[in-house]
Amino acid sequence: MSLTSSPLLEQLIEALRCLPGVGPKSAQRMALHLLERNRQGGRNLADVLAQAMEHIGRCDNCRNFTDSKLCQLCLNPKRDRGLICVVETPADILAIEGCGGFNGSYHVLMGHLSPIDGIGPEQIGVDHLLQRVSAGDVREVVLATGTTVEGEATAYFISERLKALGATVTRIAHGVPLGGDLEYIDGGTLAHALSGRQRVM
Amino acid sequence: MSLTSSPLLEQLIEALRCLPGVGPKSAQRMALHLLERNRQGGRNLADVLAQAMEHIGRCDNCRNFTDSKLCQLCLNPKRDRGLICVVETPADILAIEGCGGFNGSYHVLMGHLSPIDGIGPEQIGVDHLLQRVSAGDVREVVLATGTTVEGEATAYFISERLKALGATVTRIAHGVPLGGDLEYIDGGTLAHALSGRQRVM
Repeated sequence: MSLTSSPLLEQLIEALRCLPGVGPKSAQRMALHLLERNRQGGRNLADVLAQAMEHIGRCDNCRNFTDSKLCQLCLNPKRDRGLICVVETPADILAIEGCGGFNGSYHVLMGHLSPIDGIGPEQIGVDHLLQRVSAGDVREVVLATGTTVEGEATAYFISERLKALGATVTRIAHGVPLGGDLEYIDGGTLAHALSGRQRVM
Repeated sequence: MSLTSSPLLEQLIEALRCLPGVGPKSAQRMALHLLERNRQGGRNLADVLAQAMEHIGRCDNCRNFTDSKLCQLCLNPKRDRGLICVVETPADILAIEGCGGFNGSYHVLMGHLSPIDGIGPEQIGVDHLLQRVSAGDVREVVLATGTTVEGEATAYFISERLKALGATVTRIAHGVPLGGDLEYIDGGTLAHALSGRQRVM
C-alpha cells in the first residue's frame, strides 16, 4: 500500500507485521499509536528488541532461551536437579512455572519429532538429554510433551531411549480438565480419564 | 513476573506491551515467536522502529506524519491544492485515501478541541490552517472531523473561524451507512439522514 505520507512509516507498518497475529490494520494502529503517543516506548522497544535478537541464545544445560551461558532456572541452587521435565517449547516452561507446582529442572526440545520436516532426534537434543541423565543423579524424567500425535510419539521415543539408564520415566496425566463438564469432553480425553483412574479409598 | 529464564527476555516481553492491544500473554507469544522463528524479522523491526521514532516528524504544510520536510501527499503535483480536507488523525487520512474518492490535500488536527485536556485552537493548528486558506487559492475546506460531540464542536469552531476568508466550507455527510438496515440504525443517525435528505428527481 502506498497510501501513507511517508515511506518510513510504510516500512514500519510492514515491519510490524512480522509479529504473530498482527495484520495490516493492527500494524497501522500500532505504528500510529507509537508515533502519536509513545515515542519513548517505541525507542525502548527498538533497543531491547535489537539486544534480544542478538544476545538471546540457548542454555548449555537445558536448551531454554537465555542471555548468558546457563539460564536462570539452571543457575538457581534451589531447583531440584534430580528431576527433569521435558517440554516442547519455552512457552511450556512459562506455563508450568506459572502453575507453581514444579521445582525441578527442564529440557526443552524446541519442537517435536517430525521426520517429514527433517526434525529427528538430533534436532530436539535427545542425546544431550541422555547425557544429562547418565551423568548426574537424575531420579526422574517427566515427559510433558503435547498430547498431540507428534507429542505422544516424541514422548514414546524418548522413553524408549531412557529405558536403559535406570531413571524413572513418567508422563503427565491425561484426563478431564478442572471445571470440565463431562458432557462436553471429547471421547479420547474421557477414555484416557477412565483408563487412568486412581483409587481414592 | 520472574518466570522466565532470562532477564533480557523478560525485558522484551515487558517492552512489547507498549503496543496497543498487547497484554502479557500476547507479548510473551510475540517474543518467543521472534526468537524461535523470525530473528531476521525482529532485527529488521528493531532497526526500522528506531529510525521511525527518530526521524518521523510533522509535515510543514498539512501536519501529517512524514520523514522529510513535506509529506508525500503535499509533494504530489497531481493533488488538488484548492481543496483541503480537515481530519483529526493520520489514521483518518489512511481511511480516506483507502476509499479512493478524494484527490485534494489535508490538514491534520492531531486531536480535537478539548479545553478540559488543555487542547485549544493552537494545539490543533487552526491558525496554520487559516494561513493556508488565506494565502493560497483554496476553493473549499471539507470538515471531516469525527461525528462525536468533540468532533462536531471542533468542526463548528473551525467553520466559524473560516467564515471571513471566502472559501466554501463543507461538512462530510451524516446518514445511513451503506448496507445499513434502517431497523438497526440509531435514532440520531436516522434523524441526520432525514434532515439531510437530497432530491433525486
